[in-house]
Amino acid sequence: MTILIALQGWDTGLWVERMRRLLPARPVVTLAEPFDKAAVRYALSWRHPHGSLADLPNLGAIFSLGAGVDHILADPRLPDVPIARVVDPDLTTRMSEYVVLHCLMHLRQQRRWDAQQREKLWDDDDFQPAARELRVGVLGLGELGRDAAHKLQVMGFDVAGWSRSPAKAPFSTFSGQDGLEPFLARTDILVCLLPLTPQTRGILNRDLFAGLARDGRLGGPVLINAGRGGLQVEGDILAALDDGTLKAATLDVFEREPLPSDSGLWTHPRVTVTPHNAAMSAPEAVGALIAGQIAALERGEPLLHQVDRARGY
Amino acid sequence: MTILIALQGWDTGLWVERMRRLLPARPVVTLAEPFDKAAVRYALSWRHPHGSLADLPNLGAIFSLGAGVDHILADPRLPDVPIARVVDPDLTTRMSEYVVLHCLMHLRQQRRWDAQQREKLWDDDDFQPAARELRVGVLGLGELGRDAAHKLQVMGFDVAGWSRSPAKAPFSTFSGQDGLEPFLARTDILVCLLPLTPQTRGILNRDLFAGLARDGRLGGPVLINAGRGGLQVEGDILAALDDGTLKAATLDVFEREPLPSDSGLWTHPRVTVTPHNAAMSAPEAVGALIAGQIAALERGEPLLHQVDRARGY
Repeated sequence: MTILIALQGWDTGLWVERMRRLLPARPVVTLAEPFDKAAVRYALSWRHPHGSLADLPNLGAIFSLGAGVDHILADPRLPDVPIARVVDPDLTTRMSEYVVLHCLMHLRQQRRWDAQQREKLWDDDDFQPAARELRVGVLGLGELGRDAAHKLQVMGFDVAGWSRSPAKAPFSTFSGQDGLEPFLARTDILVCLLPLTPQTRGILNRDLFAGLARDGRLGGPVLINAGRGGLQVEGDILAALDDGTLKAATLDVFEREPLPSDSGLWTHPRVTVTPHNAAMSAPEAVGALIAGQIAALERGEPLLHQVDRARGY
Repeated sequence: MTILIALQGWDTGLWVERMRRLLPARPVVTLAEPFDKAAVRYALSWRHPHGSLADLPNLGAIFSLGAGVDHILADPRLPDVPIARVVDPDLTTRMSEYVVLHCLMHLRQQRRWDAQQREKLWDDDDFQPAARELRVGVLGLGELGRDAAHKLQVMGFDVAGWSRSPAKAPFSTFSGQDGLEPFLARTDILVCLLPLTPQTRGILNRDLFAGLARDGRLGGPVLINAGRGGLQVEGDILAALDDGTLKAATLDVFEREPLPSDSGLWTHPRVTVTPHNAAMSAPEAVGALIAGQIAALERGEPLLHQVDRARGY
């Protein structure tokens, strides 16, 4: 009943310590030292090295330690066992903080006042739109998209959402390929919270940007991507900013992370970048959720938040 | 039944045009040209020149064109007629946009990511507090304070409010002089939305800052003032920032406006300044509200949102 911690880019030691504290009866091992492969029952993954979960004959489940499972499904030698997403209310709240913050920064022209402060310029002249005059479109209506949409509505924004299959929500919804065009056409700020799947890879591209509303109050559409870097085509974002197809972009995720220092996104005057920290999993909370999932599984209950491999999330 | 438009710092012509459109039967005059003083029934004021509303024998009411009436009450030759505040849901929504935006900027350390972007530095290492871990204290529970507190609560912040007299609200409330100390002691981000009165002038001073929580998750308390410049002692704010009593400040209002170019607030690395535009009155909406108030008054209904001169708001 050993637990294997298989991480890249995160502090493995902290996770070992945490899971030992939460499940004191279990052996916890890592990829750094040899371990008994036959004893491993559960694997906790964040970007595990491809192949590192293969050849574990008694593996019963894989738990993702962060939002999204694309990093797990990308492994060509992934064993055929159930995979669980993390659904953490704390992570959802943090994502909504990020989304509402950045929608408000665009609405309230915060970059303009920042520039005026640097220049000691006092100019309050032109009248700002109110939230109700901006149409925010949330692309992806999972736990994260729904919570963000709700909070944007409370702030007064005119919110709609798009999802792959039809969804009911207390705001306008669009769905499927047919619904994408009308959804984009009424969107001034596009908030992307899609999972990364073969179908969504590269969806944030030039064609999609060209479909966004041209008649909004910000002088051009704005992109906020807090989903996955693989959703976006960064060359297209830069070109769209430069030819006016996009007015501005706020990006938390990138095709390559850390964002390479030669990327034009760092220095573009209308781009805000953050280091993939829109919604970091609170390690204590995620650890406790996984410990609870393991306990439930061993009581014979079904694995919660199980990933549909065909769907990709 | 003439309407007098008495403004400073705003475009008088636009207001004349607007009120003529809304109340086409009425003469509308300004201070720029001679007019029949006996004909003036209503005055619309934004920082009217002191004395300019005196000697109007038939003046029936004064309407403030923006939030707050301190600019009216400051006139030593103010005639003894009813004064109406503007209570505009649009203005309330805009103020809450500002308050939530700036609370989120502090929570999410936006200035840190801005600096990292300038340096092309990717560092997501240290874990951020969630909104529920930050105690926001809203000073002033009028229309603006209540709406902001509600929206901050929806975003997850741990919200309390303080008002002069006891108030009921769906969050912790404190009141009066006795309630101020415990309110400040549990406040990590202080949001000031008080009216400016002789009692509140200079309330945001060194003593008050010293009473704020020292054990919060931001490494020191933060001040956000979107009320009135006269509420704050700017020398104390700068000194408190420099000796660590305050961690950061976001100010929309100032002792003197426009903020003088030699003010240290423009350049302090932990100060964000905006040009008194947190909640600009939407001229169309405010004009329509006042036209409605005049019509109601003339139907014999009581003047709504009348100012209590003794209280000062």
